[in-house]
Order: sequence, then structure tokens, then C-alpha cells
Amino acid sequence: MKPLVILNPNSSQTVTDGIAASIAPFERFGVPLRCLTLAEGPPGIESQKQADLTIAPMLRLAADQTDAGGYVIACFGDPGLHALRDQTRLPVVGIQEAAVMTALTLGQRFGVIAILAASIPRHLRAFGAMGVRDRLAGDRALGLPVAALADAERSLAAMIATGKRLRDEDGANVLIMGCAGMAHFRDRLEDAIGLPVVEPCQAAVGQALSLMATGLSHRTERNNDA
Amino acid sequence: MKPLVILNPNSSQTVTDGIAASIAPFERFGVPLRCLTLAEGPPGIESQKQADLTIAPMLRLAADQTDAGGYVIACFGDPGLHALRDQTRLPVVGIQEAAVMTALTLGQRFGVIAILAASIPRHLRAFGAMGVRDRLAGDRALGLPVAALADAERSLAAMIATGKRLRDEDGANVLIMGCAGMAHFRDRLEDAIGLPVVEPCQAAVGQALSLMATGLSHRTERNNDA
Amino acid sequence: MKPLVILNPNSSQTVTDGIAASIAPFERFGVPLRCLTLAEGPPGIESQKQADLTIAPMLRLAADQTDAGGYVIACFGDPGLHALRDQTRLPVVGIQEAAVMTALTLGQRFGVIAILAASIPRHLRAFGAMGVRDRLAGDRALGLPVAALADAERSLAAMIATGKRLRDEDGANVLIMGCAGMAHFRDRLEDAIGLPVVEPCQAAVGQALSLMATGLSHRTERNNDA
Amino acid sequence: MKPLVILNPNSSQTVTDGIAASIAPFERFGVPLRCLTLAEGPPGIESQKQADLTIAPMLRLAADQTDAGGYVIACFGDPGLHALRDQTRLPVVGIQEAAVMTALTLGQRFGVIAILAASIPRHLRAFGAMGVRDRLAGDRALGLPVAALADAERSLAAMIATGKRLRDEDGANVLIMGCAGMAHFRDRLEDAIGLPVVEPCQAAVGQALSLMATGLSHRTERNNDA
Amino acid sequence: MKPLVILNPNSSQTVTDGIAASIAPFERFGVPLRCLTLAEGPPGIESQKQADLTIAPMLRLAADQTDAGGYVIACFGDPGLHALRDQTRLPVVGIQEAAVMTALTLGQRFGVIAILAASIPRHLRAFGAMGVRDRLAGDRALGLPVAALADAERSLAAMIATGKRLRDEDGANVLIMGCAGMAHFRDRLEDAIGLPVVEPCQAAVGQALSLMATGLSHRTERNNDA
Amino acid sequence: MKPLVILNPNSSQTVTDGIAASIAPFERFGVPLRCLTLAEGPPGIESQKQADLTIAPMLRLAADQTDAGGYVIACFGDPGLHALRDQTRLPVVGIQEAAVMTALTLGQRFGVIAILAASIPRHLRAFGAMGVRDRLAGDRALGLPVAALADAERSLAAMIATGKRLRDEDGANVLIMGCAGMAHFRDRLEDAIGLPVVEPCQAAVGQALSLMATGLSHRTERNNDA
Repeated sequence: MKPLVILNPNSSQTVTDGIAASIAPFERFGVPLRCLTLAEGPPGIESQKQADLTIAPMLRLAADQTDAGGYVIACFGDPGLHALRDQTRLPVVGIQEAAVMTALTLGQRFGVIAILAASIPRHLRAFGAMGVRDRLAGDRALGLPVAALADAERSLAAMIATGKRLRDEDGANVLIMGCAGMAHFRDRLEDAIGLPVVEPCQAAVGQALSLMATGLSHRTERNNDA
Repeated sequence: MKPLVILNPNSSQTVTDGIAASIAPFERFGVPLRCLTLAEGPPGIESQKQADLTIAPMLRLAADQTDAGGYVIACFGDPGLHALRDQTRLPVVGIQEAAVMTALTLGQRFGVIAILAASIPRHLRAFGAMGVRDRLAGDRALGLPVAALADAERSLAAMIATGKRLRDEDGANVLIMGCAGMAHFRDRLEDAIGLPVVEPCQAAVGQALSLMATGLSHRTERNNDA
Repeated sequence: MKPLVILNPNSSQTVTDGIAASIAPFERFGVPLRCLTLAEGPPGIESQKQADLTIAPMLRLAADQTDAGGYVIACFGDPGLHALRDQTRLPVVGIQEAAVMTALTLGQRFGVIAILAASIPRHLRAFGAMGVRDRLAGDRALGLPVAALADAERSLAAMIATGKRLRDEDGANVLIMGCAGMAHFRDRLEDAIGLPVVEPCQAAVGQALSLMATGLSHRTERNNDA
Repeated sequence: MKPLVILNPNSSQTVTDGIAASIAPFERFGVPLRCLTLAEGPPGIESQKQADLTIAPMLRLAADQTDAGGYVIACFGDPGLHALRDQTRLPVVGIQEAAVMTALTLGQRFGVIAILAASIPRHLRAFGAMGVRDRLAGDRALGLPVAALADAERSLAAMIATGKRLRDEDGANVLIMGCAGMAHFRDRLEDAIGLPVVEPCQAAVGQALSLMATGLSHRTERNNDA
Repeated sequence: MKPLVILNPNSSQTVTDGIAASIAPFERFGVPLRCLTLAEGPPGIESQKQADLTIAPMLRLAADQTDAGGYVIACFGDPGLHALRDQTRLPVVGIQEAAVMTALTLGQRFGVIAILAASIPRHLRAFGAMGVRDRLAGDRALGLPVAALADAERSLAAMIATGKRLRDEDGANVLIMGCAGMAHFRDRLEDAIGLPVVEPCQAAVGQALSLMATGLSHRTERNNDA
Repeated sequence: MKPLVILNPNSSQTVTDGIAASIAPFERFGVPLRCLTLAEGPPGIESQKQADLTIAPMLRLAADQTDAGGYVIACFGDPGLHALRDQTRLPVVGIQEAAVMTALTLGQRFGVIAILAASIPRHLRAFGAMGVRDRLAGDRALGLPVAALADAERSLAAMIATGKRLRDEDGANVLIMGCAGMAHFRDRLEDAIGLPVVEPCQAAVGQALSLMATGLSHRTERNNDA
């Protein structure tokens, strides 16, 4: 059985471990899940420039997985999503895109909990490219300094506060965690806010396994010239 | 293991059998798949009136499945989707909504192969409610009389012709089959047209199993008053 | 002269009486106005499920009016609007759709005073299907428990407060009452808020009478197969 | 009973007579209908410049009608619509806006039969300002030289051909006549094309009478400073 | 070298002087800049009616500039923009349109500082016609009485406060000054708010000079019948 | 006087020479124009993958221009646009974005002449991110094999044919050349098609010089943390 390869484009093994824990519920589906850390990536991706610079090494890392059955790009921002689709005919799922598509089926207006304010314009460009801006309730940042993100309880408290603003001020009825590998917070966020919370890596792995099971891809074997 | 219940709101066992065949690739995921035919439904759903009139008996049929772990409504048009979400906290997936969300990740502009022209305004209202009209390349009907749909080869030929128009005139780069239970045509459609083709029941079951695996739903146990 | 039939899909005669009072100004136009209560409906419609379940008996009630010249569906949410249009070639107007179309000509951004928060996603789906989301300033609920709605003064005060938030926080310059049969509040709302307030039954009856006068319908006698 | 004043901003009495005939079915509603020709207007309005230059004299003509109960601006393009709303608190309806709002309730995608190709960008700007571009199927011109418009049969034949293209190529299921005063063609257009056809002056007068009956306006007596 | 003609459609020479100062940085490009005041205009334009009534005299003033190489209409609201484009084949730039197009390249969501609340619906119609409503963060007025606008420091303070609300409450990351001739405030606004601030006359003159340099216009010599 | 640096991210000096010729009309504005070829780029950019892989070397090349006063990224697709904006506070203009914003002021619906069909989904994502999809008439490819693009007359003929389809079938009233450095075709395209044709490098340089003249940028000196 060919594995699903999950690519973390930052260099933090802690984040990769969090991603692996997030997607553990899918192990029962019988497809090996291989989570990889991009050694050449930055410790965290905080700008479009950093995101774009991960693409070249990530494409090489992806190409090295010669037994892959599909890919997930596990960074909210989906760096290199379409570049990797140019490189392979296997299913390629971005966690941002998958999270949005999942959220659209769980509530009428989605809210995004962004880690950093600087990411929001990037998100909005992506939502515009997806054509789903009408469904966006709001995209709000935690308002914490980067250093504070290492403090789990402080981060969770900020996520809860941000989620409540998205619910109460912006009218969101479903939330997306704008980050990878924090599924361990999902239950507590749902408990505190009372809305469904989409963890993007879960959304992406679920979709990738579905595509692999049905042989569906952006580019089939038969489609040579599109 | 609680089963995923797939509800065919028309009364045609042939269609239900086709749905069961469509989703067979998901059996390996380990969740029982229970396909049910709505005895009170019409042989085929051809209008908004017929669709709406299936809702009451379908809600009863769904409620009777007391061991369900989730539901799929297997009619392109998603009759009763939000009504069933009002009735249960379990995941409820509509095949139309799931097909669209899947298609949005496989191509920039999606085309829909509608069985009947009369369904197109209904589809457009749904795509508007989903907020994805900007991504729609076109929605075209087969142009066959209803009686001719029983002729498989003629139907397939019409689907191929319709798909090619969506590709060449409307600029679609991914297609959705606007019907349930015809996954056996998917490969030949992809071969003939050279674009990925989304079969809605497959898209919906993949998503439902993903939601069930991660305990995600439109309405969680903790969300009593939303 | 064939009557315009106004169908209240809930079972509350009080609401029907309110509707009749709302539309009394149209009596001078010379067309009989027949307001009917749906005995099989719930006392009030609070969910998509309840709305959908009124469709079957409402279609029967409509069909029983063999002398009808046109129909208005008098529930904000327009349950069965397209189903009834499938059933008859006479003009069929939904109060939600008519209210929105009227509001769009009275101000650049419309606000909706919803009775219940649970209705808002339903409204948003409808506005999306109408393709008018760009014109929506906001949709806000009264924030009252259902029991409190029987208290007219308390309801009016909540409507005024809600309307002022729509005006001041959301930038609405025209308001829609998201309910049927409360036209007696309209003047006081306009006085208090200083914006035009659309009462949906009035908007719908005005449009239905216009369609009847000019022989215009979604489906004309000559249009047999569309 | 205060009259509804219908302002034809071109100087053609023939057009005004056509408008009067179009709206004759509303006489039974009991409100006097006063159709006026703008002597200072051009024989026909063919550009934005011509449209804009009618505004000053039209505002004066409107102001002269001191007994008016409401206004309709009877040129497809709605010149001076918002200027007249600045000048008076009475209901002011534009035939383009009213036709679009009516069409949106009669079909999912509307097509516009434009008299001249040069008008189409003007229409598109208006539909954009109305926020209804997603509902537009197409806007197509007759393709006749201006001189040929005097030939009724040739004009009708071009309208029918244009309407069929809007139906068959663009997917329109409701049509709007992009001109004033040609209601006498409406029946034959509907017969030939099989779609509902909205005559804009009828749509506008119906809406204006409804507003007048219920005392609704863009600007109420109480709204002094908005 | 043919001059670029900048038309101020109000009658205030002070405003024209402010415009001239705003665009002085473009003098180095070598094209004469001719700023004209419309004697027939109102002292300031506060309504759609006032805006529309400037069109006729402005078109005459424009036509009198027989040596013009291009035009800028220097009123936020772009009165007569398309009328002047009907009158001439030279480049015609509106400051509102140019400011929006410039802002769209400087930030993901633009905010507009309106002088008067009554202008906001007019702005929204224009942004709708431009098709850019999805990019609008907000449009907020200063909240000052007209008389107070003569007080420069009070106006600047209100602009700063308004800009901060657009940034903090509405999520704007670029601002547009919704007025002409106040470029002298631009630096202090940028300093106080920390966002790029587009002065519309600068945006328009820059674009007009670019069009003139490359011989580009809405209507070329060769395009006789479009 | 600091130069404007125009970065051609492909390695073709012929293309760079074409760009330099395109923008020669701006030399009279007095700012040095420095056109650079990216040695590390591919001979031509034909996919998202190729586009993304130019970003890293292009950012280095940009950083090496320590005397720069602003930048233009001269590839239709704007690779690295936001990454370079992360790297510098100077004005950064992408030719695709500038061409679209210019076209929006010259016609109501813009058409794009794409060199390769494979680029169209990339364009559509960009137009979605820009929020201007409602204004797009169509995006059509030349339909030539890559080898044929070296044949200037054949390319021009294909551009003219493509432009006419955009005009006649899609309703475009302004066109954009979806490539860099072909300004020498612009006059003949305009002559043949009768619509204004935007050459993207001209649009971008005009805008960049305007921003430089007025000290306007996405990120000002004062904006340290946005």
C-alpha cells in the first residue's frame, strides 16, 4: 500500500510531531501516513517570502518519495500547492484549501483563527483565488508576540478569545485553526466556543485518502496535455 | 463500529445498487456502509417539488437508523440536507455539496453534467447558496428525453458530448456528474474527455468518513443552543 | 376577479390576522385577498426542518384554491417557493424574496431583523441563492427567548435596538422585518430608527398584484417544456 | 388621489404613448397615471452623455409636478434616479432597477435584450452597482442600425432572435426588454421564445404603486439627516 | 506638449489650488498640468444630484480645452466620467476609479475616508460598478458637520480617527482619501495610522500621464463604431 | 535619481530587449529604467512550478540592486510579487496586476490573450485573489505550439484571432496581452480588433513611476510592524 506523504515545510520537528498526532485517527483507514519535516525550511513560516522560499526544497523532498501514493502540504498557506501539482499526477492536497472546503459544509460563515496578523492578507488572497470570500465571516489573529506562542496555555486562551470574537462579532458558525499540528487543542476550543472547529491537517488527510481510494486526481494518467 | 447510512431519496433500487457500487472502494476504510432506498420517493427526482416531498419520509427513515454514525443524502440537489442537520448531531453530507467542494480542489473552473435541463436552475440556486458561483464554468444538460436515460450507451455518449462542451466552450477543467450511482461511467468519461470527473457519492462518502473519524460535525455534543 | 391567495404556513391564526392587517392597504386595488392558515403547520417556524415539513400540506392547500389568480407564501424563508412554482403556472411570490428585491431599491445596503438567531444561516443561504450577498449589511437576531415574543412592547423594543445596530454598526440604510404579519410595528420602527422598513407581506402582495395585472409569471401558458 | 408621474426623458411622444399603453393595465388600481415627455431630451438616448444631460431638465419637470404621489423614470438606464431621490421624499422608481428586481423573481438567470450595443457597458455598470452580476446570463444587442428600429416587424424579429440566443447560448430563463414603451411586443416575444419577458415600465409602475399604497419610500418624513 | 487638463467640478478655487499642490510632484514628468475650476459648480459636492448637475457645464469646459492631451475629473465620485469618455477619444481618468485601482495594488483590503456620510451609498454604487466590493474593508465618514471641515486641524484629527477605525475594526491595510486636494494631509495620515494612504488626484494624474505616454485610451482613433 | 528596476524572471535576453523597447516611452519622465534578465530563470515560464522556482534567485537579484528606487516584476503571473514586497519597502509592481487595474479603467469587461492554455488557471487564481472576476470577459489561449511562438507573424495572427473571439464571443471591450515584451504588436492588434490593448509592462512602469513620484508604497518607512 503506497503511503500518503505529509510534508511539513517548516523545519520544526515539534510541529511535525503535532501533525502526526493530529492525523492519527486516520491510521485505521489502512494507508500508511508518512510525515516529513523540511530541513531547509524556516523554524516557522511568517511571511509570503518565507513560504515561497520553501517551495524549491519541498518539491525536491516530494520527488524523493518515489513510493508516494499522494501528498499533503501541511502549512496553512499551501506553499507550492500548484507547483507540486505541476510535478506529479498523484493527488496533492493543501491543508488550507481542504480546511476551507470542509468548513463550508459545516457552517454558513467560516472564521479563521490566524496565528499572526501578517498572515491575514495572504489568507485573503487565497480565499479570493478559491472564490469563497462571500462565505468568510472573518479572519482574526491571536495578537500574541511570536515568543508567546511557545506557551501552550496562553496560546489556547488566545485562540478561545479569538474564536469567540469571530462567533460574536463576525457571525462565524464554524471555525478553522489557521495553523498545523495543534489538533490537541481542538476539543477544548469546541468546548469553550460551542462551534465546530476544523483542524486543517485532519481535513486534508481525510480528503487525500478519499482521492486515493477512488483514483481521483487533478491530472489523470490519461490527461497528457491539459 | 457504527455504520455510515447512505440515503437514496428515490425509490429505484437500481439507483441504490449503483450507489453501493460507486462507494465500494471505501469499504477498506473499515466503516460499514448501509445504502437505503426511500420507498416513498418517486422513481426519479425531476423537480424541486419532487425533491421537497421526499424530505418528510427521508427524515423518518434516517431517524429509524438508530445505530447510525453519520448520513449521506444521495441525490444531486441535496433535498433535506439542512433539515436532517436540524434533526441529528451526527455528520450529514450532501452529495452535491461534497462534489462541489471536491471539484474546487481539482480544477479552477468546474462544469456540471446535468441529467435534465429542468434541474439547472435548482443547481444554480444551490451553488449561489454555497457562494461558489465564481468558480462555475457551466452547467449543461444531456438533452435526452427521460426515457432514453435507460439506454446506458446513449447516456454515456451524451455525457461525453456534454463534458466536451463544458471543457471546450465553457473552459471547465474539472467535471461533476450531476447524478447518483453512475460511477461505472467515470473512467470512460475521464478517458474520453481528459479531465478529472467527480462522482458525487464517492466525494460524499469520503468526506463523511473523514468527519466520523475525527469526530467533527456541524453540531457537536457541546453545542446545545446554536 | 380571481383572488390572490396568501398562504401562512404556520398554524397561528393570530399571525394570519396580522398578515391580513398588513396587506389591507392593497384592498383598494380591487383584487380579493384571501389569507389562509395552514392547519398542519407548526405554531411558528423555527428551523429548516419545520419549514421543509410545511411544504407538502401547503402544496395541497394551494391546489385546493381552484379559483386562485396567484399565490403569496407568507413565511420569511419562503418554504416551498419553487415547489409551488413547479405545481402552478400562476404567479407565486415569496415574502422573503419580494422583501429583498424591494429593499434593494430603497437603500444601498439592507439589514435584516431576524426573530431567531437560528434562522440566520437559512437567510444567508437564501440571499446567496438570490445572488445579493454583496448588498447585505447584516442580519441580526432580537436576542429574545421565544416566549418573550408574545410581549409586543418587548418585541418592538428589541426590534428597534436591533435595527439601530444594523444601521450604526453594519451600515444598513434600509431594513427588512424578518417575519410575517407585524406591519403594525412598521411606523414605529421607522420613527425610531429613521430608515425605511420593508414589511415582507406588503412587498410580496404588491408584487403579486403587479404580476397578475400584467399577466406575467415564471411560467406562461405557452411555456410547456422549459 | 395623487398621481404617479411617469417621466420619459426622451423627447419622443411616440415613446411616451407606448409607455402609456404599456402601463394601462394598472389603471384599475385607482391611481392616476400621468405620462410626461421631456421636451429638452434627445429623440432617443444612445449614450451615457445623452443620458446624463437629461438629468437637469428632468429634475425640473419632476419638481413642477407639485401634486405627484410618486415618480417613475422611464428610460432603461435610469438617468437621474438617485438625483431625483435626493430631490424628493416620494417614491422614485427606475424602470431598469425595477425590471431587474422583477426578473430576479421569475427566473434564475436573466437576459437583457439591448437595443444598441453601445448601451451594454452602461447596463453592466448598473447591474454591478445593483450587486446582481452573478444572476446575469447575458446582455445582447439587436444588431440593427438605428434607422431600422422604426420598422416594427424588423425590430420584433431581431428581438426574438436575440432572446433565443440569450436562452440557448447564455442560459437565460427570464428576459428583460432593454427599452421603454414596447409592451405591445411582449406577448409575441413570450410566445416565440417561451420565457417570461419583463417589460420595464410595467415592472416599475407596479412597484411604485405598491410603495405608494404602503407609504414606503427611500426617505421617510422622519428621516431628515440620513 | 499637450497639457493634461484636471477638472475640478466644484467652484472652489481653494480646492483647485489644493489639487494643484497635490499633483506638483508630477511636473517633473514634463507634461503641462492645467487645473481648472468649474465656475458653474457648487462650492462643494454633497449629493448625487449636485454631482449630476455638474456634468453639463463640465463637458462644455472640457470641450473648450481644444489643446488637451487628456483629462482628469477631480471629484471623488467621478461625475460625468463616462459622459466625457463619450465626448472625446483622449484619455479620461476619474480620481475615484484611479484611487481604487491604485489602492488594490497596495493592500488586500481598502478603506475609504469619506467626508460626508451621505456620500457612502454613492461610493458603494461606484465600487459595485467597478466590481471590487470584495476588496472593500469599509467606508466611513468623518462625522463632522460641514462647517467644521474648514478647520484643518479638526478635519485631520477626524481623518486620523476614521482611518484608525478602518484599520482596526474593518481590517483595512490601505486607505483612500475620499476627497480631492488634501494631499498636504497625506504624510501626517500615514505617520499616524501606519498604512499607505492614496490621494486620489495623485493616483489619477499618474495614470493619465501613463496613458498619454503610451497612446492608450478607452477609444482609439481606429475604433469608430464601438 | 534612483532607477526603476525591471526584472525579467526568465533567462531570455530577447524578451528583456522587448520589455525595454515596450517601456521606452517612459524615458522622457526622467527616471532611469534598468531592465535585468534573470540568468537562473528558464527560457520561458510555462507553469506554476517554473514561476515559483524563479522567486529565490529573483529576490537575490533584486536585493543586489542597492540603488533601486522601485521594482517591476515583468512576467505575466507576477511570481514573487508579495515575497519581494516582504523584502523591500520600495514600490513593487507586478505587470499582471498593473495590466488588470489599467484595463478596468478602459472598458467594462476585459479579455486576456494568453500565450499558453496551461496558464489560464493560474491567471484565474490571480484574478480571484484580486477580486475582479466579475469584470473578466474571458481568457483565451493562442492555440499555438510553443515552437510556433518564435514566428512573429504567426503569433500576431493568432493574437488577432484570439482578440476577436474575446470581443465577439465573450463581450470584451478592452484586451490585455498576457505576456511581456510584445509592445511592438500593440498597434497592429488595436488596428485589427478595434479595442484598446493593454501592454502589461507599460502599465506597470507607468504605475511604478507614479508611486515613486509621490512616495507611495505598500509599506512606508513609518510602518514597521504591519
